[in-house]
Amino acid sequence: MKNFSSDNVSGISKEILESLTLANNGIVNSYGDDKETKKLYDNFEALFENKVQVFPVISGTAANSLAFASCVPPYGAIFCSKESHINEDECNAPEFYTGGAKLINVKSNNAKLCSNDLLKKIENIAPHGIHNAKPSLISITQSSELGTVYNLDEIKKIARIAHEKNMFFHMDGARIANAVVNLNCSWADITWKSGVDILSFGATKNGAFCAEAIIYFNNSISDNVEYFRKRGGHLISKMRFISAQLNSYIENDIWEKNARHANNMAYLLSEKLKSVKGVKVIYPVQSNSVFISLSDDIVANLYNQGFNFSYWGDKSDKIYRIMISFNTPRESITNLIQAIQKECENI
Amino acid sequence: MKNFSSDNVSGISKEILESLTLANNGIVNSYGDDKETKKLYDNFEALFENKVQVFPVISGTAANSLAFASCVPPYGAIFCSKESHINEDECNAPEFYTGGAKLINVKSNNAKLCSNDLLKKIENIAPHGIHNAKPSLISITQSSELGTVYNLDEIKKIARIAHEKNMFFHMDGARIANAVVNLNCSWADITWKSGVDILSFGATKNGAFCAEAIIYFNNSISDNVEYFRKRGGHLISKMRFISAQLNSYIENDIWEKNARHANNMAYLLSEKLKSVKGVKVIYPVQSNSVFISLSDDIVANLYNQGFNFSYWGDKSDKIYRIMISFNTPRESITNLIQAIQKECENI
Amino acid sequence: MKNFSSDNVSGISKEILESLTLANNGIVNSYGDDKETKKLYDNFEALFENKVQVFPVISGTAANSLAFASCVPPYGAIFCSKESHINEDECNAPEFYTGGAKLINVKSNNAKLCSNDLLKKIENIAPHGIHNAKPSLISITQSSELGTVYNLDEIKKIARIAHEKNMFFHMDGARIANAVVNLNCSWADITWKSGVDILSFGATKNGAFCAEAIIYFNNSISDNVEYFRKRGGHLISKMRFISAQLNSYIENDIWEKNARHANNMAYLLSEKLKSVKGVKVIYPVQSNSVFISLSDDIVANLYNQGFNFSYWGDKSDKIYRIMISFNTPRESITNLIQAIQKECENI
Amino acid sequence: MKNFSSDNVSGISKEILESLTLANNGIVNSYGDDKETKKLYDNFEALFENKVQVFPVISGTAANSLAFASCVPPYGAIFCSKESHINEDECNAPEFYTGGAKLINVKSNNAKLCSNDLLKKIENIAPHGIHNAKPSLISITQSSELGTVYNLDEIKKIARIAHEKNMFFHMDGARIANAVVNLNCSWADITWKSGVDILSFGATKNGAFCAEAIIYFNNSISDNVEYFRKRGGHLISKMRFISAQLNSYIENDIWEKNARHANNMAYLLSEKLKSVKGVKVIYPVQSNSVFISLSDDIVANLYNQGFNFSYWGDKSDKIYRIMISFNTPRESITNLIQAIQKECENI
Repeated sequence: MKNFSSDNVSGISKEILESLTLANNGIVNSYGDDKETKKLYDNFEALFENKVQVFPVISGTAANSLAFASCVPPYGAIFCSKESHINEDECNAPEFYTGGAKLINVKSNNAKLCSNDLLKKIENIAPHGIHNAKPSLISITQSSELGTVYNLDEIKKIARIAHEKNMFFHMDGARIANAVVNLNCSWADITWKSGVDILSFGATKNGAFCAEAIIYFNNSISDNVEYFRKRGGHLISKMRFISAQLNSYIENDIWEKNARHANNMAYLLSEKLKSVKGVKVIYPVQSNSVFISLSDDIVANLYNQGFNFSYWGDKSDKIYRIMISFNTPRESITNLIQAIQKECENI
Repeated sequence: MKNFSSDNVSGISKEILESLTLANNGIVNSYGDDKETKKLYDNFEALFENKVQVFPVISGTAANSLAFASCVPPYGAIFCSKESHINEDECNAPEFYTGGAKLINVKSNNAKLCSNDLLKKIENIAPHGIHNAKPSLISITQSSELGTVYNLDEIKKIARIAHEKNMFFHMDGARIANAVVNLNCSWADITWKSGVDILSFGATKNGAFCAEAIIYFNNSISDNVEYFRKRGGHLISKMRFISAQLNSYIENDIWEKNARHANNMAYLLSEKLKSVKGVKVIYPVQSNSVFISLSDDIVANLYNQGFNFSYWGDKSDKIYRIMISFNTPRESITNLIQAIQKECENI
Repeated sequence: MKNFSSDNVSGISKEILESLTLANNGIVNSYGDDKETKKLYDNFEALFENKVQVFPVISGTAANSLAFASCVPPYGAIFCSKESHINEDECNAPEFYTGGAKLINVKSNNAKLCSNDLLKKIENIAPHGIHNAKPSLISITQSSELGTVYNLDEIKKIARIAHEKNMFFHMDGARIANAVVNLNCSWADITWKSGVDILSFGATKNGAFCAEAIIYFNNSISDNVEYFRKRGGHLISKMRFISAQLNSYIENDIWEKNARHANNMAYLLSEKLKSVKGVKVIYPVQSNSVFISLSDDIVANLYNQGFNFSYWGDKSDKIYRIMISFNTPRESITNLIQAIQKECENI
Repeated sequence: MKNFSSDNVSGISKEILESLTLANNGIVNSYGDDKETKKLYDNFEALFENKVQVFPVISGTAANSLAFASCVPPYGAIFCSKESHINEDECNAPEFYTGGAKLINVKSNNAKLCSNDLLKKIENIAPHGIHNAKPSLISITQSSELGTVYNLDEIKKIARIAHEKNMFFHMDGARIANAVVNLNCSWADITWKSGVDILSFGATKNGAFCAEAIIYFNNSISDNVEYFRKRGGHLISKMRFISAQLNSYIENDIWEKNARHANNMAYLLSEKLKSVKGVKVIYPVQSNSVFISLSDDIVANLYNQGFNFSYWGDKSDKIYRIMISFNTPRESITNLIQAIQKECENI
């Protein structure tokens, strides 16, 4: 396995795939009126140790955008980092689902929002009243697009800003399991106990086929989301098969097993590469990605050997993302390390 | 099995479910850059005996709405029947994806568009110029929401109107396989050979888990649909598993086997019920649904016995939809007939 | 004057034009923070004998659409007559401003909503839940597009339906002054005392240059409309000149003088034409328009003499709208009557 | 006159006000089918020495947003400076009218786009394909929000980038007359001869009541703008009165007279203030605004004397905008200078 381009290149975890076959038993009502979906609500409440509202969807972009649609007005502003998936990788889906809200980019450190700049930007907008967008929501990605993880204090600090300014606080958790494992905290700690109002809960990148969920910890804002989900074409008729994926993901602790493996492989890779001359590990490695700088020659040679990964950000910066998946074999990591070591020695 | 409320209450056809396991083999690129998806294009070209553009999605609402987004401007009008799924069952998804186009209801016979009224409505709008919506697209459902099927001449007649008026012609084929089987025609006949520009190809209701496709026969209008699909949150990262469902559906002739069974069960049901006093079969039975009128008492008694089906349209009309699925056992049909017969005798 | 094509073909009432010059005095803050606009609020509260929220805009389409934006969700439904201006003459503006709400056409008598059909349509949608649009608002036009006027009981009946179903009730008052004059009632009677929540108050057609206002009688729903107005490009920087038009319109009773004249000319025209053989007055004449049926020959001859008016609705119905304006001279009416009489005699 | 808060606080130029009275003569067709509007097209072609498409509207926000609606897809990106009016002062109107396009902020020098950063940002987005917004349009403001003016070479450089990347080039000309006067160039030079595709032509801030126009130099992109204008509620029924304002503005060279006066007063003010200790003129003064830094005490004292102006940008930067209007008397400028001088001496 030499494909490190994305964690989406891996397929489905064995147990999750099997859960589809089990769920195929019998005739059940459609659109979520089924036993699997009912069990799902219990599973999420147990996972988060709290009452939550849960709305399963099939993509992270849908989860994020529907979350925004439910609580950001068309004239609102969403504060996020430039690097955030909602800003750079969703083809204006947040703008679409909100009816035209504006995404305002806040300075970031390693893709984590800088709270000083955040506060300043919110306060500079406020005096404009109806002439500018209305500050409505802050969104962070956990773990971030650069593989870094907000610690609990960092999350709480941003939550405080959000709530002091009467804004909602959203967490894009496409890779949240990797952050939970990294922080060794509970799901409650990393979310509502730290002030998160809405979570895009991701399972797809960590072993599911197509299963995400919008989780509301603040129950005053989810009233309309079912309308928005239906209107977006995201209400799956045979819902039991989405719910089954998520149930299996939670009940069998697949989230932990898969995330821990991917994280560990990333730590291993980065540890080994740190001692290799000619490679630089760029950001703190706290989840399942490793960003390294490499010279053009080395990259070309690695590509020639069939390795697959891509530069990230500004091409001229020569920073490459190595993405590790829930089922990337240790051997693949070892092979990659050796290949890089060999290339670096040759130079 | 006593649940006749929808064809979505059935699960997944065995072969399609197995195709997911087969597709889970190996590491492949995401977002459609994979072998399954490439094969999909070949399969659809073979099925339609023509070059086509194919964009897989996970719901019929998504297929319809994205089709419209690609060729109906925000100031446009879509002509459809009042009963159409796009008008009554998609929570404004067509309006959402087009940025606010208007759906104009045309008179229908048994849910099939009346071409005289269609033409008149288009021609009455035209003189208003920019003051009214711009006639942009005609959409029909095949087979229709009332289980009826347009014959090829009827399709061609509407296609001619569309093209004479410089409009696009769309077919909502959520249950198109049932119509192909009913008409005993080719997929080419029922679509591009009859003037259809865009088809929402449905597989979910006929045995898939979540697999539909937007098919363009007119290749001048699909340029932007990939942007719209991504923006709607409908570009599935692990696309191979959508494509695998569709490949299995086509390669194994599941579409035909499943649709033929469902249709046959519907014909059987309606034939038997026609001779029962106290029941009236309302519309021509040409696909997998049977609409009957029943008295309140009989309905109540059937509900008490566990039968599950629902009224359709205006509740006071006392018309009920019996929906038959690809895997509804013949025995279930027989039981339903006997139960109705018995209730009718008792009155 | 032979142009009866629209009441927009007339210019500006003398007093209103003069008000612009008076308002041009001095330096005042922009965007409504000025004395004229403050006076406007007082004028409207006096006119309506109640607290009201007032938001001036420059077109009726803007007034209607912004009213909807403030209280109809993107997944909502607006019930209106097919003939309504919002449905047929605003190029999808309501859909645009609401983010894609659906306009559902209700049967009408002479363009006035039929309350039985209205109630039935609302109740038929309700059971669909999130699958169909959510009934959100009823809109009527007073006086209607066919020149008819709802009496107070008719308004109250519709208001009751709206409020029983938790919907808002909107009145498109592009020509409301003509209705007030016709009913000989107060502005309070015709609006909030009869249950109207929001009024699009029109002055443009009745003598202003570009001055309309959104009036809220229900103060719980206007919080966001200033954002929507700004976002639509409808917050006029030199607002004092819009407010001045409306102040002059109210303070000088121009609304009454102008509407009474136009109505009287319409009554005169219809009374005279009723006795002319070959002409048929189609709808009750209750405001400033007269709809008549004429043969093709007569129409052609009148056009040849320079008369300007247009068919309405389905061209083959041969129904023509004669629109009378606030400043249409009595002589013009007399000339038109004579011309029609002469043509009819010749046949 | 002590109100320097905006150029919108001034009223209407005498000749323009008179043009309304002249245009009030007679009965003319509505919606632009009138002599004033026809003359308008000739006036603009003469002004620009070229064929142009002209669409009058009543606000700058409408002009900008409709320009974008006509050529930026919902999944598109508009590149602009952070300080631009479209980004900070239009409450998401560009996002609204385009159906959700994204505004991407480019570094600027004194509010003028930095072409290096512009090029880099466009090129960094391109490889993302459908995953990010599609680069569609570049917008600059002339003269800028900080009173600076792009010279012709600077405009051409940005135009070249736009066209090399298959993007459109838009100029927000809310204060373009001030730039024409400053550059002492022709209207052709500053627009199409320098590569501008679309211009928002502003007259309101420079002496009109409510009159702007969208001007297309590239005639392939204006086909749909009439639909968008109507749909936005921006098609004025009594159009002759908008056209009359613009005709008077052009025919009487009011644009030049007014802009020259305002610029000259700004030059005078900045020249005098440059020699006052305690004041700093921040940006090059090239049109009708002067940005100065002042201490809190001085500002408080000036406010106490009734002077009206406001900080700009980040409040803690203590930068204040002095906005001069077409009719600001020289005496007002002199008084302001003296007041500032006196305050500075006292410190």
